[in-house]
Amino acid sequence: MNTDTFTAHESNVRRYGRSFPTVFTKALGATIWDETGKPFIDFLVGSGALNYGHNNPTIIAPAIEYLSGENILLSLDMYTAAKRDFIEAFVDSILKPRGLTYKIQFPGPTGTNANEAALALARKYTGRSSVMAFTNAFHGMSLGSLAVSGSASTKELGGVARHDVIRVPYDAYPNQAFDSASYIDCVLGDPGSGVEKPAAIILETIQAEGGMNTASAAWLAEIQRICRKHGVVLIVDDIQAGAGRTGDFFSFEFAKIEPDIVCLSKSLSGSGNPFSIVLIRPDMDIWNPGEHSGTFRGNNLAFVTAGAMCKMWSDRQFTGGVERTAAKLQRHLDHLVAKFPKCIEQKRGRGLMAGLKCRSQAVVGRVHDVAFENGLLIESSGPNRDVIKVLPPITISDDELDHGIAILNQALQEQDNGD
Amino acid sequence: MNTDTFTAHESNVRRYGRSFPTVFTKALGATIWDETGKPFIDFLVGSGALNYGHNNPTIIAPAIEYLSGENILLSLDMYTAAKRDFIEAFVDSILKPRGLTYKIQFPGPTGTNANEAALALARKYTGRSSVMAFTNAFHGMSLGSLAVSGSASTKELGGVARHDVIRVPYDAYPNQAFDSASYIDCVLGDPGSGVEKPAAIILETIQAEGGMNTASAAWLAEIQRICRKHGVVLIVDDIQAGAGRTGDFFSFEFAKIEPDIVCLSKSLSGSGNPFSIVLIRPDMDIWNPGEHSGTFRGNNLAFVTAGAMCKMWSDRQFTGGVERTAAKLQRHLDHLVAKFPKCIEQKRGRGLMAGLKCRSQAVVGRVHDVAFENGLLIESSGPNRDVIKVLPPITISDDELDHGIAILNQALQEQDNGD
Amino acid sequence: MNTDTFTAHESNVRRYGRSFPTVFTKALGATIWDETGKPFIDFLVGSGALNYGHNNPTIIAPAIEYLSGENILLSLDMYTAAKRDFIEAFVDSILKPRGLTYKIQFPGPTGTNANEAALALARKYTGRSSVMAFTNAFHGMSLGSLAVSGSASTKELGGVARHDVIRVPYDAYPNQAFDSASYIDCVLGDPGSGVEKPAAIILETIQAEGGMNTASAAWLAEIQRICRKHGVVLIVDDIQAGAGRTGDFFSFEFAKIEPDIVCLSKSLSGSGNPFSIVLIRPDMDIWNPGEHSGTFRGNNLAFVTAGAMCKMWSDRQFTGGVERTAAKLQRHLDHLVAKFPKCIEQKRGRGLMAGLKCRSQAVVGRVHDVAFENGLLIESSGPNRDVIKVLPPITISDDELDHGIAILNQALQEQDNGD
Amino acid sequence: MNTDTFTAHESNVRRYGRSFPTVFTKALGATIWDETGKPFIDFLVGSGALNYGHNNPTIIAPAIEYLSGENILLSLDMYTAAKRDFIEAFVDSILKPRGLTYKIQFPGPTGTNANEAALALARKYTGRSSVMAFTNAFHGMSLGSLAVSGSASTKELGGVARHDVIRVPYDAYPNQAFDSASYIDCVLGDPGSGVEKPAAIILETIQAEGGMNTASAAWLAEIQRICRKHGVVLIVDDIQAGAGRTGDFFSFEFAKIEPDIVCLSKSLSGSGNPFSIVLIRPDMDIWNPGEHSGTFRGNNLAFVTAGAMCKMWSDRQFTGGVERTAAKLQRHLDHLVAKFPKCIEQKRGRGLMAGLKCRSQAVVGRVHDVAFENGLLIESSGPNRDVIKVLPPITISDDELDHGIAILNQALQEQDNGD
Repeated sequence: MNTDTFTAHESNVRRYGRSFPTVFTKALGATIWDETGKPFIDFLVGSGALNYGHNNPTIIAPAIEYLSGENILLSLDMYTAAKRDFIEAFVDSILKPRGLTYKIQFPGPTGTNANEAALALARKYTGRSSVMAFTNAFHGMSLGSLAVSGSASTKELGGVARHDVIRVPYDAYPNQAFDSASYIDCVLGDPGSGVEKPAAIILETIQAEGGMNTASAAWLAEIQRICRKHGVVLIVDDIQAGAGRTGDFFSFEFAKIEPDIVCLSKSLSGSGNPFSIVLIRPDMDIWNPGEHSGTFRGNNLAFVTAGAMCKMWSDRQFTGGVERTAAKLQRHLDHLVAKFPKCIEQKRGRGLMAGLKCRSQAVVGRVHDVAFENGLLIESSGPNRDVIKVLPPITISDDELDHGIAILNQALQEQDNGD
Repeated sequence: MNTDTFTAHESNVRRYGRSFPTVFTKALGATIWDETGKPFIDFLVGSGALNYGHNNPTIIAPAIEYLSGENILLSLDMYTAAKRDFIEAFVDSILKPRGLTYKIQFPGPTGTNANEAALALARKYTGRSSVMAFTNAFHGMSLGSLAVSGSASTKELGGVARHDVIRVPYDAYPNQAFDSASYIDCVLGDPGSGVEKPAAIILETIQAEGGMNTASAAWLAEIQRICRKHGVVLIVDDIQAGAGRTGDFFSFEFAKIEPDIVCLSKSLSGSGNPFSIVLIRPDMDIWNPGEHSGTFRGNNLAFVTAGAMCKMWSDRQFTGGVERTAAKLQRHLDHLVAKFPKCIEQKRGRGLMAGLKCRSQAVVGRVHDVAFENGLLIESSGPNRDVIKVLPPITISDDELDHGIAILNQALQEQDNGD
Repeated sequence: MNTDTFTAHESNVRRYGRSFPTVFTKALGATIWDETGKPFIDFLVGSGALNYGHNNPTIIAPAIEYLSGENILLSLDMYTAAKRDFIEAFVDSILKPRGLTYKIQFPGPTGTNANEAALALARKYTGRSSVMAFTNAFHGMSLGSLAVSGSASTKELGGVARHDVIRVPYDAYPNQAFDSASYIDCVLGDPGSGVEKPAAIILETIQAEGGMNTASAAWLAEIQRICRKHGVVLIVDDIQAGAGRTGDFFSFEFAKIEPDIVCLSKSLSGSGNPFSIVLIRPDMDIWNPGEHSGTFRGNNLAFVTAGAMCKMWSDRQFTGGVERTAAKLQRHLDHLVAKFPKCIEQKRGRGLMAGLKCRSQAVVGRVHDVAFENGLLIESSGPNRDVIKVLPPITISDDELDHGIAILNQALQEQDNGD
Repeated sequence: MNTDTFTAHESNVRRYGRSFPTVFTKALGATIWDETGKPFIDFLVGSGALNYGHNNPTIIAPAIEYLSGENILLSLDMYTAAKRDFIEAFVDSILKPRGLTYKIQFPGPTGTNANEAALALARKYTGRSSVMAFTNAFHGMSLGSLAVSGSASTKELGGVARHDVIRVPYDAYPNQAFDSASYIDCVLGDPGSGVEKPAAIILETIQAEGGMNTASAAWLAEIQRICRKHGVVLIVDDIQAGAGRTGDFFSFEFAKIEPDIVCLSKSLSGSGNPFSIVLIRPDMDIWNPGEHSGTFRGNNLAFVTAGAMCKMWSDRQFTGGVERTAAKLQRHLDHLVAKFPKCIEQKRGRGLMAGLKCRSQAVVGRVHDVAFENGLLIESSGPNRDVIKVLPPITISDDELDHGIAILNQALQEQDNGD
């Protein structure tokens, strides 16, 4: 197995290749294989970009057909048949059943492209320049998204100051005693608070990179109320938590809120093909034609696979299966929490977006390494890298899930013994 | 032909669908067809993202095979066989023959992701926060790239000020009398100039969106000299002009410069699939592992098609053909300039990256509409939208090129008569 | 009495002339007279710039002598005998008795000049650019000071964003339930908080313009502990609360803290002559010669009067008198609070820096007008202008104080009856 | 002569005390004396703050009388008799004779306070946030003024980026070949220039700190034309060049322009007492009452001396004397330039605001030291500190001027011999 090419020619910035030192080739469902033929259960799924598993046949089959047929692949925002089909599938299978009427914007194909578009629109709509964002937020690596991310240091921002960002505490930050929503409400209403009225509040319902911090339904509803009271746009960055990850299509459905703007990407294409959309409350869709653009906003192969993914949500057998898998995963994790109190502090997350807050970064590092050795891919998150992210495909089979959890159990057992 | 879906559900931001009011389906080489079967010659090629034509068989065939084989599609920056193959093809067919030793970074898959990474690295490397950028530059739609773009107004930036950007005049701006390079040299050397030493100078060798303004070899060499003299990183944004567009693989080859950082995207995948890379002078590759990331930085289908594209540059028949086509295009345009002085002011650009500066935005608008009617897709650029962009595939057949030019000729003729 | 000149030629920005529509001429102690000879008790004292009363003979006599003697008046930061005398008086009568060893910087002569110098030095010392500042703070009208002021809106900042400022809640903001010090400690220690480590925390011990909000000794001590723990410079803006206003020379003496940097101005010259200094912890005095400047930093007439003021603090009869007057004022205010619960919500402040938080802005407005009519000058503060500021000279005679309070009592009585 | 007090207690930032290592006491006209009784001719005059000489009897006599009379000294912006007298003197002796109708704003008493107010008003008036400022400009030490100053490095700005400032080349920068006015006109008119329309252009007609760079009448008139064409406010910072320094009261009179806003300070009080005003085109005076403030905006002693100074400009004998002195100074300097070509490169400035651009910083340093030894105070300016500033009082006697020039001549002679 030859990794010299990477060492010789790829930038030092490469990271996963270092922590998973092998070369991968094949992938199907929840399993990927390296060049030697060794299989790995994948609880990482492209940081949440492969919710439907690798090479899901329902999604990939139409892509092969499309690619083989001399169909248009890149089209900017010209009208194409593939794009029309996607829009119709998204409207019919996702928006309408949920009573939603969002307009759809196609920005560049990455999550950060979507967040940048959302922030720009909120600023244009309100005529204000500041944005309120939360402790431990993560919204992407381009400057506008990075600025609202809590984990980015000024250094990581290249010395560029975090302009026009108002940092406020997330739900239950720093602890349950502090009522962050009421604090936000207060500073927005006090002319002497020194906190300007922002264009928008941007939030994740679960802060995946921030440590799987999970907002309550009550807090989310309160934030929506505050936004409406003060005339502030509510943006939900549903890039990692959306597209099915929590069990529902949108991660905010459980809180019964309806954000003004929603950003989707990662698993949206269903295939790992870069794709993102911004959903906009119709009266807020005040873009001028061409005011926001992006070369790859017309990725037709992604339209095809995304359309196939959307249609799955009209299938009650599919949604029932996701629900059962989520319940099973939660039971597995409750079991691990109970069994390894020396390693694990707390279960975090909802549905299939789960995390195990561990006692230390060291524990997580060793669990990661042992799990890899034994055939399981996991990653960590949180400001102190002490949270194990557990993100299996939402379509994972019972056997694969059980097998993955068994490997995780064993890796934790070794730490538990060792400590 | 049904465009109601777009009107009903897509954001007002859609633009090309308005100027080309039809629905496209098939595409091959320099031709695309709409649903009614009407063919169009494509001189727009996805704003330079389809230099090798639509569905180029040399590029698409391996993609179909890869997609059909349950191969890994999304891999973050894990090592995969497809990625290794791409790196080897890029090193062997592109870098080595040109004596280049860049390290390759894979940021998010869009041009703006690449520029943001390049700017962040230059800031980290120098410990400075400002960046020098040019009048009429365009570098992308995320905040960091937008800030260095000349065409973006504060309004378009959402009221966010253009922080840490020093605007300086491009080659021959505002006119030939002004020696912009010498001005830059002077302000960088004068402690009282009020112009801080920037981390980087970022430039396009041809400002496509800015009106096809074309830098001379002498000016580019002088800018490189100034960067080295003052310890400033030279970044060439070769997103639209690179990957073959000017006839050479890199647009700066003719000037015999070697930038510190080069950004590629658009036509890099050869297939329209989102993909970008940042090329970094090896000693400047001081990223920490994972310091810059992006979900879609491991788009394996793009690795496959990009690898196939790279190998074409080892084929002298291919490169000879590009050269001949470029020469033919230039002759065609010279002819048009001579023939329609009432419409056309000046030819701009180099190789297959050409523009016709017209007398007014109105002329360009009418030429665009007539050309579309007659089966040719073109677009305009420049701050006053008075430049016709002529960007045929660099692999266009003689017949397709002649046909496209004939339609353009006729559209100009009508204006010439009309005025 | 002719005010036409002001109406015709002075900018609309004039304010006090509108609320006190008369022309003043003479002033002595706590009394000023208008052109008609009508006397007014002054509880406004130049917004705290005349703590020692108007034309205090101890202070003014040496000024008359100096001015009459062809002595140097303006000297930049050249050495002069008058400056030497001031430094010696300040060291001997103020610093040494309090065990303080600050170095003295002479910036421009206004409070905001001092704060700007303090912020610049803290940024230079730490190499960080952000500053933490509080809700309802006020630090001055130049851009750097304005940015850290809570009451300034972006609009008032001329559309310039409040860069590099981290806004945090003041003691007991928004209410006693919220432990602001612990919140600050937490965000400074959490790498994912999105709150960068600031160069400094700047604070007033009593927020005069912000509504006479009064920090507790415990909170101030805790903030000092947090600053030291995280390596953050503690700046006390003692411009309004210092120079004797609270009864002590420095307003922070009661909390037994020793800030890294202290800014003084307003009453520092004792005479109303513009003057300010910055006190710097000796090891933090890393300015290069001439790095910070200001034409009027060598105002020798102010040196003379300030020196005379300092020496008063060595006189126990003087300090005992201030103490008694402060106690008397507090008793008077307690009485008013008890008597007019329909008008007054709460007494605020400490020593001779007192405020009456009223039930509404309207009450305060009417009290102001009636008091003026009856011969008392007061002003209001707070984001909602519902706090009456009570700032008599700290040298006020018992008779003047009683008379002023009597007028205030009567004005409140009218409102109490009226409501 | 004891300077220990300064060394022990004053901040390291002190500068003039180091280059003139003595202690000054008395001062009259163009002469100041140190404690030993040694006289010095003063060509520094408080960096232009003592244009009327030290202790000018016409100015100081009414101040002594005022100070001795228990008259109000500090009054915020309440109406006082002294303020009314000043306004009337300024209108009658300065504005009316020049056909000017400016409204007068009293900000804080320093130059930078005035510039900050001017910039804030221009931003409010236009609703734009950027300001255009010139290479080598100097406008003050508070953040807003510092940001527009060319000589300030980011480091000196405390790491705070120079927000909202567009730097453009001054007249004849970098050399006469470059038409800076035409460049400014061009970028303001080009929607793709990347240069936003600023709120204001702020300029000095002679850049004193920047090296005595002198704008031509033609360039100033052209900048005024460009401002009017593009709807940009023209601010002249006349803090050092105004109040008589160039021979006229305003430095821009010779160019026959009428700026929208003019800032005055330094010599405005005539006595060295801190004082500044902002002159505003009447229709632009859109301040709300109290929107801009400052404790020391009501410095009545300065009103008294400033009024006395204004009245001098109604005296033709006075103005004729200034004119003759200016002519004499220019002849003296022409003589020095001709005599010492090895030391002096060029004469700069106008009227009594003159500079000698020398061959090196070292020459200037040595001339400064020898001159001080021989009884002359001068200072240097320019980004490379290679310009000798020659700023005698505009009321200097022929004898004092000749004596000062003789000392300068001898100091240059020594360098000329030495080289």
